[in-house]
Amino acid sequence: MVVSLSQKCIAEFFGTFVLVFMGCGSAVVAGGHVGFLGIAFAFGLSVVTMAYAVGHISGCHLNPAITISLWSTGKISGKDAGGYIISQIIGGIVAAALLYFIAQGKADYSLAANGLGANGVEEGSPDHYSLISGLVAETVLTAIFLVVVHGSTSKNNQNGMFAGLAIGLCLTMIHIVGIPITGVSVNPARSIGPALFVGGAAISHLWVFIVGPIVGGLLGGGIWKLYDSN
Amino acid sequence: MVVSLSQKCIAEFFGTFVLVFMGCGSAVVAGGHVGFLGIAFAFGLSVVTMAYAVGHISGCHLNPAITISLWSTGKISGKDAGGYIISQIIGGIVAAALLYFIAQGKADYSLAANGLGANGVEEGSPDHYSLISGLVAETVLTAIFLVVVHGSTSKNNQNGMFAGLAIGLCLTMIHIVGIPITGVSVNPARSIGPALFVGGAAISHLWVFIVGPIVGGLLGGGIWKLYDSN
Amino acid sequence: MVVSLSQKCIAEFFGTFVLVFMGCGSAVVAGGHVGFLGIAFAFGLSVVTMAYAVGHISGCHLNPAITISLWSTGKISGKDAGGYIISQIIGGIVAAALLYFIAQGKADYSLAANGLGANGVEEGSPDHYSLISGLVAETVLTAIFLVVVHGSTSKNNQNGMFAGLAIGLCLTMIHIVGIPITGVSVNPARSIGPALFVGGAAISHLWVFIVGPIVGGLLGGGIWKLYDSN
Amino acid sequence: MVVSLSQKCIAEFFGTFVLVFMGCGSAVVAGGHVGFLGIAFAFGLSVVTMAYAVGHISGCHLNPAITISLWSTGKISGKDAGGYIISQIIGGIVAAALLYFIAQGKADYSLAANGLGANGVEEGSPDHYSLISGLVAETVLTAIFLVVVHGSTSKNNQNGMFAGLAIGLCLTMIHIVGIPITGVSVNPARSIGPALFVGGAAISHLWVFIVGPIVGGLLGGGIWKLYDSN
Repeated sequence: MVVSLSQKCIAEFFGTFVLVFMGCGSAVVAGGHVGFLGIAFAFGLSVVTMAYAVGHISGCHLNPAITISLWSTGKISGKDAGGYIISQIIGGIVAAALLYFIAQGKADYSLAANGLGANGVEEGSPDHYSLISGLVAETVLTAIFLVVVHGSTSKNNQNGMFAGLAIGLCLTMIHIVGIPITGVSVNPARSIGPALFVGGAAISHLWVFIVGPIVGGLLGGGIWKLYDSN
Repeated sequence: MVVSLSQKCIAEFFGTFVLVFMGCGSAVVAGGHVGFLGIAFAFGLSVVTMAYAVGHISGCHLNPAITISLWSTGKISGKDAGGYIISQIIGGIVAAALLYFIAQGKADYSLAANGLGANGVEEGSPDHYSLISGLVAETVLTAIFLVVVHGSTSKNNQNGMFAGLAIGLCLTMIHIVGIPITGVSVNPARSIGPALFVGGAAISHLWVFIVGPIVGGLLGGGIWKLYDSN
Repeated sequence: MVVSLSQKCIAEFFGTFVLVFMGCGSAVVAGGHVGFLGIAFAFGLSVVTMAYAVGHISGCHLNPAITISLWSTGKISGKDAGGYIISQIIGGIVAAALLYFIAQGKADYSLAANGLGANGVEEGSPDHYSLISGLVAETVLTAIFLVVVHGSTSKNNQNGMFAGLAIGLCLTMIHIVGIPITGVSVNPARSIGPALFVGGAAISHLWVFIVGPIVGGLLGGGIWKLYDSN
Repeated sequence: MVVSLSQKCIAEFFGTFVLVFMGCGSAVVAGGHVGFLGIAFAFGLSVVTMAYAVGHISGCHLNPAITISLWSTGKISGKDAGGYIISQIIGGIVAAALLYFIAQGKADYSLAANGLGANGVEEGSPDHYSLISGLVAETVLTAIFLVVVHGSTSKNNQNGMFAGLAIGLCLTMIHIVGIPITGVSVNPARSIGPALFVGGAAISHLWVFIVGPIVGGLLGGGIWKLYDSN
């Protein structure tokens, strides 16, 4: 089957929509019931499920930090990468809008009090971590994430059919550790959508969740190359 | 091996029985112990386990919204679809009856106070979400569910053996997010059985959990076709 | 490779030891920390891990109800079944003894106050369910368990490599629902070991956890035959 | 592809870094939010993800107790084993250092009050278990772990592609049961790093988390040989 770039972009749009709608949705709608562990599973399972739903079309990046890291290692063309990233960002914005609409159906919901799953540092960090801790954490966690992405899909790896499971459960692991620090982004498209609705510090600190994941993603690609020269 | 329609219907009956007995059972019997996260795993694992137990016989739909969406994309005949749906609804009713019997063995159980895992909106919603939020949520969540069903079982997808895991864990993810809104149906057969025993608002709002999932299922099939033209 | 019956019995002994040591251990040592959901994962993961550790030797029954159900469908000889069941029961007793030894290293541990993960009904049921509810629940839950065992390992099933995962996660699902009712046995070997140390009602009600699982296991084999005639 | 020892050592260094950074990180950063069950998943998922990320290069030991047990059964040369163990220990130390750096970005963090995920017995045990209970538990739990490692990767096992999942989820199961006893090591490299920063009893009891896992690992290899003579 020949897959067109527009089909790939639809897959990336929809997959990122699901990641943000379900991940941030678990925090906004259900956070008080399921805790940080439940949120961590929601984010991770969004990637597991999309990996097997759209992965055969687009590779299931759902994340500009992944697309840029794969572009830096020559695994995707610049043209495709551009289409992917635009689709991912739009998917995240649409997800945030729909989530906001549904959340307003709850009697005691207000954006100011309940947020929309935006990422933050300092006063925007769940446990009030500093800017530097947040930036280092986002960078290191994304580097780990990208080592798993590159390693589990390596052409030297005979267990590639498990990549979707490994990458998704890696995102669960990252959220278990990182939610108290920044709410966990490791994905600019996941941060941009909610920030546009929340505004304020979510916008002024948005650069942390763009720079950290992109630098971390490139770092992860470099680490992978050190041990897996294919 | 040749499988008869009656064997397929037994598989669908039993699988849907397990989904409702274990899923709603986790809420009624164990909800106070395991929380919404535990209930989300019970529902999801009922599909994971049935996918590998009866999937090779019937495809493991367990859900009229899935059967109708697969019928709309030409993957199942009208005659088979009719048999599947009837079997699913009966399976859900039998499960609710058996669950009600077991629950009465608890000293302080009463249907009025503890319910039977019925779905609801407004005063029947765990966190009192509005009718419109509930209807939109059921539609969108079922659409996501059906994209995973269609995508993970696509003949273009080389990782089809993971479909049972992906579809089941998708149902876990959907419950993590959606229980506070409606208790999560995304499946008319899951809602009908408990509603018959609970009555009242569970019956008067039952249409939400028939219309929402069916419309969402058709929508999910349409989204899948956009990116995976096979 | 030719596997001797004694090697199979060692595998069954060790596997059942792990099931009881880790499953009951999670309740006795960690129940106050991880809750019923954590206990459910401990039991289920003991089967997942043993399935891939010893399954290629003995088939990883770890449970007389499974061995008897497979014997009833002609999948294991009577001689092997006898060896399996004896090994399973001894494995459970050794596990309970070692767990008792370790638990005594905790300053405030006492068998009377903390138990040893024994199953029970009425005053021995976590939520005080009746004898009849407990017996019906054990029978139905074991029937579901055995449908998954038979179906996921059916020679008609092309996804048999997932059987260990499906069967183990089925045990997790069963525990999520059933712990409040009886503590969940669905396995005579899991109940005998702890009961010998706890005594009292754990002994007088032990028949429930022998009869229920064996009847349920035979029932599950019969249900499976209805839809999967191979 | 030919893999050099230095590439294998990088893989072991990075994998052990991830195990300690994410596992101990879940305890230090998120323990109050996700509980022992969340910590158990973080440790287990670190192994699942690294198994599919670096397993095709080094086999993903991440643990001197595994490397020594595999060396004792002739599955790795002494020279490679030495390189692996040194890389693992350094990986754990670097992880502890980075975790300490990030944790200090939290306003109310202090090493004395919050620790760094170090293992302990007696006053260092979460539930104050005795030295002998801790030593026996570490030995038995590591033996179980190594049976899963040897069994799931046995050349007699046709489901070897699931080994990463089985071994990682085994570590989750071990943590569910064992955290109250010692915090769970079963891995000298996981204990050494944090102990160097915490000092005191974490250093004086460090021998428990070196001797227990190594003896347990050798024991596990011996048990495996009894039933799986390949």
